[in-house]
Amino acid sequence: MEKIKGTIASPIGFYADGIHCGLKRKKLDLGWIYSEVPASVAGVFTTNQVQAAPIKLSKAVIQGGKIQGIIVNSGNANACTGEEGFANAQQMQQLASEKLGIDASLVAVASTGVIGHQLPMERIVAGIELLDQSTEQQPENFQKAILTTDTTEKAITITAVIDGKQVTISGCSKGSGMIHPNMATMLGFITTDVAISSTLLQDLLKELTEVTFNQITVDGDTSTNDMVVVMANGLAKNQEITEKNTDYQQFKEMLTIVLTELAKLIAKDGEGATKLIEVDATGAKTASDARMIAKAIVGSMLVKSAIFGKDPNWGRILCAIGYSGVEFDPTNVTIELAGIPVFKAGEPLGFDVEQMEDNLSEEEIKIAVYLNEGDAFGQAWGCDLTYDYVKINALYHT
Amino acid sequence: MEKIKGTIASPIGFYADGIHCGLKRKKLDLGWIYSEVPASVAGVFTTNQVQAAPIKLSKAVIQGGKIQGIIVNSGNANACTGEEGFANAQQMQQLASEKLGIDASLVAVASTGVIGHQLPMERIVAGIELLDQSTEQQPENFQKAILTTDTTEKAITITAVIDGKQVTISGCSKGSGMIHPNMATMLGFITTDVAISSTLLQDLLKELTEVTFNQITVDGDTSTNDMVVVMANGLAKNQEITEKNTDYQQFKEMLTIVLTELAKLIAKDGEGATKLIEVDATGAKTASDARMIAKAIVGSMLVKSAIFGKDPNWGRILCAIGYSGVEFDPTNVTIELAGIPVFKAGEPLGFDVEQMEDNLSEEEIKIAVYLNEGDAFGQAWGCDLTYDYVKINALYHT
Repeated sequence: MEKIKGTIASPIGFYADGIHCGLKRKKLDLGWIYSEVPASVAGVFTTNQVQAAPIKLSKAVIQGGKIQGIIVNSGNANACTGEEGFANAQQMQQLASEKLGIDASLVAVASTGVIGHQLPMERIVAGIELLDQSTEQQPENFQKAILTTDTTEKAITITAVIDGKQVTISGCSKGSGMIHPNMATMLGFITTDVAISSTLLQDLLKELTEVTFNQITVDGDTSTNDMVVVMANGLAKNQEITEKNTDYQQFKEMLTIVLTELAKLIAKDGEGATKLIEVDATGAKTASDARMIAKAIVGSMLVKSAIFGKDPNWGRILCAIGYSGVEFDPTNVTIELAGIPVFKAGEPLGFDVEQMEDNLSEEEIKIAVYLNEGDAFGQAWGCDLTYDYVKINALYHT
Repeated sequence: MEKIKGTIASPIGFYADGIHCGLKRKKLDLGWIYSEVPASVAGVFTTNQVQAAPIKLSKAVIQGGKIQGIIVNSGNANACTGEEGFANAQQMQQLASEKLGIDASLVAVASTGVIGHQLPMERIVAGIELLDQSTEQQPENFQKAILTTDTTEKAITITAVIDGKQVTISGCSKGSGMIHPNMATMLGFITTDVAISSTLLQDLLKELTEVTFNQITVDGDTSTNDMVVVMANGLAKNQEITEKNTDYQQFKEMLTIVLTELAKLIAKDGEGATKLIEVDATGAKTASDARMIAKAIVGSMLVKSAIFGKDPNWGRILCAIGYSGVEFDPTNVTIELAGIPVFKAGEPLGFDVEQMEDNLSEEEIKIAVYLNEGDAFGQAWGCDLTYDYVKINALYHT
């Protein structure tokens, strides 16, 4: 297995591009992915009860088990836009399918951006008109066209050999405001030439989303537009994976790496963030407990503010465990902040303040919590809370 | 019923004072309340599993049904401090009881401030030595001594006639970081000369906390130190209230006003806040649903940031309802932001942008949500998220 330089179009038979159609002032804002043949598809979507029009549409599309294209816009979420918004999403799907020469039922739609405004369809229509999978594309432009307040592209490509065939998997994502739930939209797109049944792919995506994207933003507390879609077109010609055999395990490992990397990239590029925070919860009774604890810590505004200020205020970490909803005994807990033990068995530990300040100056801060109540492990990722987060979110709309 | 100028010592037979003992650099940091006679007591405490030493101690104290004194320090939370911390809380209780000449079992203890540091007991001991209920006190100094990052005192006094007697109730509180849960500690102290049984008082406090303090900070997601205590010493000589009669209803109304006012004052003075946000949720299926919705909105970092930026980004309000955990139909919802309808029946409404900007410049912003699914009503209070919040919390510890 090898991480290589690539794009979302690196797997065999995939094409992608992105353009500027005028939803944003200057930046790319319309992108598409196309596969030469229909691909097995899996998708996970926001659980917010308020679901954007493209979410409703794409949920229905992936029920068919196959898709061949995806059209995505940024700059406008097409959320809370009623029947007109749904009709607009359908028109995006229809126009893209005509340009790509495929059936509309094989095209998924995604949107991200401001909520509550109708899409300016004349710009979308003109943009889709420029779609052309027959000419030379710049797939990295797809990775740019899906971004909103992100400061960097988020992409990863891995190759490996499965069933004697060289296979490739690529993913890209756009970030959310912060690691704390309730924040801005996250989108993830994964392409692979591996042959795998859509049923198995759907189960696998759901399983892995729990330990990756759901440990940053996509969960019960999600935006109206969150969506992750995997397309597997089978053009690597491995024997189709239809059961949990060795090939499946290998593919699972590849997909895990891709999703974890994309999740961490989103957390690291949280709005206004200067630091990636990783929380490892060890020794919980269940994996679900461990994940809840890790997520409560990484979601605490007080912890996030403290990390921004390089402030070893570990009491806030213990406080977050205390309201995580998981039952535990505080006198069993050990906490390490940035590699330095600060709390053990119910009592504060002394530590070298200068060493701590040095460690907290790093760009990646690890918080390790040992519950000492069982064998389960869980992780979550987030970022610090900074002045720039407030600035970005106070001024995003107008 | 009349709101009057007063202090926590306005009800008959109460005394209070506050001094500087050195836990904070200059500000007052040690306060006490004393009643001439043992008072019926009620208390609500943090539900965080990590409970500070004074919480554990005071919970046990109020089991007795009566207390006569309270000793409070700010500047150090005495939380996550193990057995030494509990022994320190006990010593505070013991020393205060000796100075006040009452039994230690009649003294409650509260602390607020930084977590994870042992109390510097020599300063506390010297401070308690200065306690003297026989000389002239400055009860407003109690109201100051309990503050941490608060910028103003939070107090209210009301008088009324119950059972033919003039009765008085006073309350004061210290604020938390923000209205979003998980934040800094809130403390509330209420004194009254009304005669009421401790059983009834405890039930009433619990009931009213749900619709007041719990709609800002004190709930499942609380700090390690949150505590609200009511002392009712009966010196107004009304016939003791032991059942839910007219007198009870009158007292309930008084206590409701006191707790609501203190809750709003806490929200308004949230760390870094420039605006009070009130959310009224109308037409929910149950009052609990209405409160959950109101609290989700007022707790949303994106809504809070938008209000700071005077940004009418109402999509974030609908999004927050969507993840509040309450089932509802978005197409039934109407939203008014700062008095202006912005969303109705699943569709955005146009509005006068200049008028909106004017309205969002006010210091108190009301968000009204109409679910149109039932008759229940609920409120929550919070504040905007500002640069100063980040500043305060990045630098609080060191």
